[in-house]
Amino acid sequence: MAAQSTIWVNGKRDSSLALPDRGLNYGDGLFETLLLNAGHIFYLEHHLERLQRGMQVLGLSHNLDDLTLQLRDAARAVQHIPWGALRLTLTRGAGPRGYRPPEQGTCQAIIESSELQRDGDSPANPVALGIAELRLGNQPVLAGLKHLNRLEQVLAAAQVASAGYEEGIVLDGDDNIVSVVSGNIFALQGNHIETPALLRCGVAGTRRAILISRWARAIGLEVIEKTMNLRDLERADEVFYTNALVGVRSVAAIADKKYPRCTVAQRLFEAYRADRS
Amino acid sequence: MAAQSTIWVNGKRDSSLALPDRGLNYGDGLFETLLLNAGHIFYLEHHLERLQRGMQVLGLSHNLDDLTLQLRDAARAVQHIPWGALRLTLTRGAGPRGYRPPEQGTCQAIIESSELQRDGDSPANPVALGIAELRLGNQPVLAGLKHLNRLEQVLAAAQVASAGYEEGIVLDGDDNIVSVVSGNIFALQGNHIETPALLRCGVAGTRRAILISRWARAIGLEVIEKTMNLRDLERADEVFYTNALVGVRSVAAIADKKYPRCTVAQRLFEAYRADRS
Repeated sequence: MAAQSTIWVNGKRDSSLALPDRGLNYGDGLFETLLLNAGHIFYLEHHLERLQRGMQVLGLSHNLDDLTLQLRDAARAVQHIPWGALRLTLTRGAGPRGYRPPEQGTCQAIIESSELQRDGDSPANPVALGIAELRLGNQPVLAGLKHLNRLEQVLAAAQVASAGYEEGIVLDGDDNIVSVVSGNIFALQGNHIETPALLRCGVAGTRRAILISRWARAIGLEVIEKTMNLRDLERADEVFYTNALVGVRSVAAIADKKYPRCTVAQRLFEAYRADRS
Repeated sequence: MAAQSTIWVNGKRDSSLALPDRGLNYGDGLFETLLLNAGHIFYLEHHLERLQRGMQVLGLSHNLDDLTLQLRDAARAVQHIPWGALRLTLTRGAGPRGYRPPEQGTCQAIIESSELQRDGDSPANPVALGIAELRLGNQPVLAGLKHLNRLEQVLAAAQVASAGYEEGIVLDGDDNIVSVVSGNIFALQGNHIETPALLRCGVAGTRRAILISRWARAIGLEVIEKTMNLRDLERADEVFYTNALVGVRSVAAIADKKYPRCTVAQRLFEAYRADRS
C-alpha cells in the first residue's frame, strides 16, 4: 500500500483542482519532484531555477517567493516523514476554450507529498535496465524542461515494466540515447564520464547538472555531454543514472549486458551525500 | 466575456477534479471536442471511434456506453444553447507517484460545455493564416490521436496570435505541413484535393475523415493524403481547413499569399451541412 499523500492547492490543504484548468486540458504547465528529509528540501534553488526556465518558455508568470513559501510550509507539515517527495505542479490555470493561452492567466500551484520507503542516506540497489520500444520525439523548444506533457514517459514506463524491468533506457528517433524514463544516464569510459547532450528532447535533471558541475569534479572526473548510442553503453566500464529521489544509482545490467563494476557510482553517491549536507 | 460553462465530472455536476489525477500530472488521457446544436451532438460515433483508438494506444479502459450517456445528458442539460461545444476529457485517474501507469486505474470523465457565438449553419468567414515558428515533433505512436499533451499547440497558438493571426499553419521538423493549430488543412490542386498524411504527428480530425470519405465525394472530388510543404500550398487554387466547430472553413490568405477563390470550400460546407442533418 502506498502511504497517504497530502495535497495543497495554492498553499491551502485541498484535495481537488478547480476546473477548467489548462494543466489538465493541454498539459499547459510544469512540475518538479523534490526530495525531502524530515522537513528539509534538498537543492530547492536548482528546482526553482529549472522551473523558472520553463516558465519563461511557456510564458507563465507566478511569484517564486510565494512558491518557495508554499513548498517550505508543505515540507514542514510532513516533517514526521523521514524520507519523502514533494511534487510541485504549476499550471496556467483557467482560460476560455481553445489552445491559445489567455493574456492574463492565474497560475495554479499544486503540491503533493508522498513518503519514500527507502533511506535516502544509502545508495539504491544497482538496477537492471530494459530498453523502451517507444522513441522520444524531438522538440528542441521544450527539450530539457520538466513540463506536463509526459505521455511518452508514461508509455515508455509501461513498456519497460511489462518487460519485467523497474527502469529502462529511452532512445530518440535516431536511436540515440536520451536518458532513462525517470532520470539521466551516465557512462564511465576509461577516465571520463559521458552523458547525452539533451538538445532535442529529454529532461535536464537537477542532479545531472550538479553531478556535472560538482560531484564528478569532487572525485576528479570530467563529464562530456555528447551524442550517445547503445554501442557507447556497451563499451562503458560503468553505467549509472541520476534523479532527485535516488541521487546516483548504479546500473547492474542493460538487457543482457552486465556491468559488474560500481566503484565510480558509489564514489559519486558519497560526493552527493557530502555535497547536500 | 466568454459565456459561463457547465462542468460534469463522471456524470455529476461539479466544478473540480479529485487529486491526484494522471491527466493533470502527465497529460495521461484523451479529449474530444463535440459540436452541439440545441441539445444535439454531431458525429458522436466518429468522436467515440477516435477516442477508442486512443484508449487502445494508452491502455485506458472505460465503458463507452456510459460515456455516451454522460455526453447525451450534458447535451440535453444545455439544449437552450443554440450552438455550443462539449469538451470530453478522459484521464487515467489517480495513481501512485511515478510515470508507470497503475494496473487497475479508474478513468475520470470530465465534460465541459461552452457556448459558441456563431451560427453553425453558416460557413465561418474566410480566414488569414499565419505560420507558427514552432515545429511539431514526430511521434508516430501518438500521431493522429487527440491526447492531452498539447503544449506544442499551445505555444504555436500563442505565436500565431502574437503575429496578429487568428489561426496558423504548423509544420514538422522537416518543414512539411501538418495542419493548422486547431484543425486539418486541405489544398485544391486542379481537380483533386490534397491533405497531409499525418503519419508522424498531428491530430486526425473527425471532420478530416468525413470530408475525405463523404463530402469531397459528394461534390465529385478525390482527396489524396501525401507529404506536403509550403510550396504545395503556394500553387494551390484554394485552401481550407476543417474542425469539429467550423466544419469547413475557407482560407483567404497564408501570410502574404492571397487565395481569392473559395468555391470548393463553399460546396464542401454545403455537403457537410447536408450530410450532418
